[in-house]
Amino acid sequence: MTRIERRGRRGRTGAADAPRRKVNYHDLRNPFPAMNAFTEDRIEALHQASLTVLEEIGIKVLLPEARKLFRQGGARVEGEMVHIGRETVEAALASAPPSFTVKGARPDKDILLELGRLVFQPGAGAPHATDLVRGRRPGTLGDFREMVQITQSFDVLHMVPPLVEPQDIPMHLRHYAMTEAVLTQSDKVPFVYSRGTPQVRDGFEMIRDFRGLSDDEFHAQSWCYTIINTNSPRVIDMPMAQGLIDFARAGQMSIVTPFTLMGAMAPITVAGAMTLSHAEALAAITLTQLARPGAPVCYGTFTSNVDMKSGAPAFGTPEHFTASLVAGQLARKLGLPWRCAGGSAANINDAQAANESQFGLWGCLLAGASVIIHSAGWLEGGLTVSFEKIITDLEVLQMVAELCAGTPATDADIALDALREVAPSGHFFGAAHTMERYQTQFYEPLVGDWSNFGTWTERGAFDANHRATGIWQNIVANFEPPAHDPDRIDGLRDYIARRTAEGGAPPES
Amino acid sequence: MTRIERRGRRGRTGAADAPRRKVNYHDLRNPFPAMNAFTEDRIEALHQASLTVLEEIGIKVLLPEARKLFRQGGARVEGEMVHIGRETVEAALASAPPSFTVKGARPDKDILLELGRLVFQPGAGAPHATDLVRGRRPGTLGDFREMVQITQSFDVLHMVPPLVEPQDIPMHLRHYAMTEAVLTQSDKVPFVYSRGTPQVRDGFEMIRDFRGLSDDEFHAQSWCYTIINTNSPRVIDMPMAQGLIDFARAGQMSIVTPFTLMGAMAPITVAGAMTLSHAEALAAITLTQLARPGAPVCYGTFTSNVDMKSGAPAFGTPEHFTASLVAGQLARKLGLPWRCAGGSAANINDAQAANESQFGLWGCLLAGASVIIHSAGWLEGGLTVSFEKIITDLEVLQMVAELCAGTPATDADIALDALREVAPSGHFFGAAHTMERYQTQFYEPLVGDWSNFGTWTERGAFDANHRATGIWQNIVANFEPPAHDPDRIDGLRDYIARRTAEGGAPPES
Repeated sequence: MTRIERRGRRGRTGAADAPRRKVNYHDLRNPFPAMNAFTEDRIEALHQASLTVLEEIGIKVLLPEARKLFRQGGARVEGEMVHIGRETVEAALASAPPSFTVKGARPDKDILLELGRLVFQPGAGAPHATDLVRGRRPGTLGDFREMVQITQSFDVLHMVPPLVEPQDIPMHLRHYAMTEAVLTQSDKVPFVYSRGTPQVRDGFEMIRDFRGLSDDEFHAQSWCYTIINTNSPRVIDMPMAQGLIDFARAGQMSIVTPFTLMGAMAPITVAGAMTLSHAEALAAITLTQLARPGAPVCYGTFTSNVDMKSGAPAFGTPEHFTASLVAGQLARKLGLPWRCAGGSAANINDAQAANESQFGLWGCLLAGASVIIHSAGWLEGGLTVSFEKIITDLEVLQMVAELCAGTPATDADIALDALREVAPSGHFFGAAHTMERYQTQFYEPLVGDWSNFGTWTERGAFDANHRATGIWQNIVANFEPPAHDPDRIDGLRDYIARRTAEGGAPPES
Repeated sequence: MTRIERRGRRGRTGAADAPRRKVNYHDLRNPFPAMNAFTEDRIEALHQASLTVLEEIGIKVLLPEARKLFRQGGARVEGEMVHIGRETVEAALASAPPSFTVKGARPDKDILLELGRLVFQPGAGAPHATDLVRGRRPGTLGDFREMVQITQSFDVLHMVPPLVEPQDIPMHLRHYAMTEAVLTQSDKVPFVYSRGTPQVRDGFEMIRDFRGLSDDEFHAQSWCYTIINTNSPRVIDMPMAQGLIDFARAGQMSIVTPFTLMGAMAPITVAGAMTLSHAEALAAITLTQLARPGAPVCYGTFTSNVDMKSGAPAFGTPEHFTASLVAGQLARKLGLPWRCAGGSAANINDAQAANESQFGLWGCLLAGASVIIHSAGWLEGGLTVSFEKIITDLEVLQMVAELCAGTPATDADIALDALREVAPSGHFFGAAHTMERYQTQFYEPLVGDWSNFGTWTERGAFDANHRATGIWQNIVANFEPPAHDPDRIDGLRDYIARRTAEGGAPPES
């Protein structure tokens, strides 16, 4: 596996055998032309229908504080139902920033969020982990820590999400263990769950102190992010509403994501599901701006379909693809950065899994998504993250990042001299034009094996999954965390010990 | 496997349990926005460099008759080297048709070739076949026949190529056996190898008579096609030149495809390789038009890169993707229909194989290719066609075809009534809007399994490959060929018997 293991290190930060080839997989601009699913007038009709949903039909908001903010912002509140007028939504959209930065531990790990940018996050939120060595099992802190290390090791992954739930850690302490792993094992943008104010406050304090910031410095920029799923159809529940408010007030980024499965929690049509998703996203964005005008917020959706015979969710389908395109049109209408997602319903990392994930990814790319979530590792519609699938999906993300860089077409690239030099039926292996470039010209695969059938068979006939096992095992075995101030690591552990002694912070719901 | 086998029949012609959902996977228009790799001025520079290659550096043409045609067309011929002036190329481009039809056995199997159309062909030309039941072996006539039946069974495949080489049939008789299988087992557009005039003439006569045409009727339209690979760099060999001439004179379509691997038979840069590919394609197109002005011809390329350590060809890479985009820009400049190709270097149908094939496919789609070749089943860079990979790739092609159809966004689709009807936290399963549509709304997967992990495990934990085995076995076991006039089948077999008795037709080189 030596050759393959060496390959596995390419494109990773601080690898011992750094590639001679310079690649920038961090600052990505989407090079793909935006694709429209609907005409502009139908997008406007959909937007107006969403405003009608908010104004006439209303949305249920479970948190009294959130209802109060909506009321103060001009909404009509009847019991738990909130009716948000167009002018309230429009005011919120006017104050939501079209561009902002979320900070990592170092400036070169910051991410800029605006239309046209491209940011990748691996699969997240899975109760289970799986790999070929240990099998499928409930996620543990050990799994989470290893997945953070893998995420840290690839420049094309820009954010560290809650990859897998560490089910061996009790809920009132889990956020400490997860944040400790993310902050010490990574220098990338960290995630904080919105599971009630006490946990969120803990997260903010740990990140603030670990980054060496004052309260004012922390609040002046976004240093972490959360994901807000509305409870479709038409509910914003307690912890989600609280998260929107807490993150907005602290100047931290919320990514708003209605999870609207066509035919189940949303209308069966793309247009209907996106009308609901858009309405819910607008309500959540409005709440952030009512809590603090100018708060950083990402528009978003996760709209796919279900199998109408079983109700099972599906991903990477034509309907999912089309919904992504519609979301992109709506995001461009709003002018806000936005998140989209790929994913797969497959149960193992087979051809179905690869095809669904990549098909969903292309929907996101042609939709012009700023952040693409669940872009590596996601199986079973998010119930499992696979160590091997993280690696095989990373191959696709790295190839997309290569396309972001563009390709030169100077006269030297057109290579008339080389074309004169090589005789008919000859080859270019020894041409001067080739010799000057051969070490750095091509993307070298992470897990792809291009050897012929005989060589591949002699080497053990390993499929991509088995090669991926060698790659992630090598990363985990040799992982060296990024340099952090030891005092801050001590401080973080002291904080966690103190808060643990105080009883931790149970999630709220 | 019953449920899966039933799924396998969807989208197929004449299946017993025809889908209630109406789909048209035949008349496809590319819905994706065209992506440019280079600026227009660099495309012009590349085009001019290609013209310089043809005029100054020259191309070696091995067939005397072809050199004579070039000389008559104004080219300068020195020995075997032909120097083609710009005005000769431009005259040829002016007479090459921007749009034409290639005929199947029935009008609904005809394909229209022009920019903006989308035609798919499965993987072709492989010496080996593989499947999970019988393993990897040299291709046989039985394999070829089964693959023709599978190709016939899916509307999203529009042409019947030489999927696998029937190595159990001697070369001087192989074209009879292949044509017999294609004509009797299919009603789609058939392929004829350019392996010398005797075989080509046999092919034309068999197709003419089987379609019940006079000579004039046959020549008046295209009823079959061939693929012409130049011998890069800068050689058109005997059978290829003869094929270009024979097909043009008979009014049959040639698809011109320089196979220019960056760093090997072509410069290592995308721009350099595409300059060579473009020059060779222009030379071949010019020869068709010198043989018969107005002859139907497809522009094309197959440009990818090699592993510079081993020389092994790679497919579905960022460089392959970019080369496809450049070819698309050049084809649009010429205004001609054109072919592009996906493919994979993987040795089995694993995540690598799926990812490479789909990545290459997206390059073709965003390049605006009119014909996408090797779009299903291709492994090992074309040395093997996999029965299972045909099926798993077909899933992706069918999903692309779904996107071609577009998605409605009427007021009824926006579904405000359903959004009013379903309470917060409710679901849409029983909504009137859902009930009216649930049987036909969504694409139903061919081989994808969306069941949850428990159900999937209970059913045997089959991966996509194993499910694909059940699907192709079911197709082959229950295949019924399309209706053909029995007299023509007898006539075809008589023709083959007579020609076999006469000694057949060895390939020429």
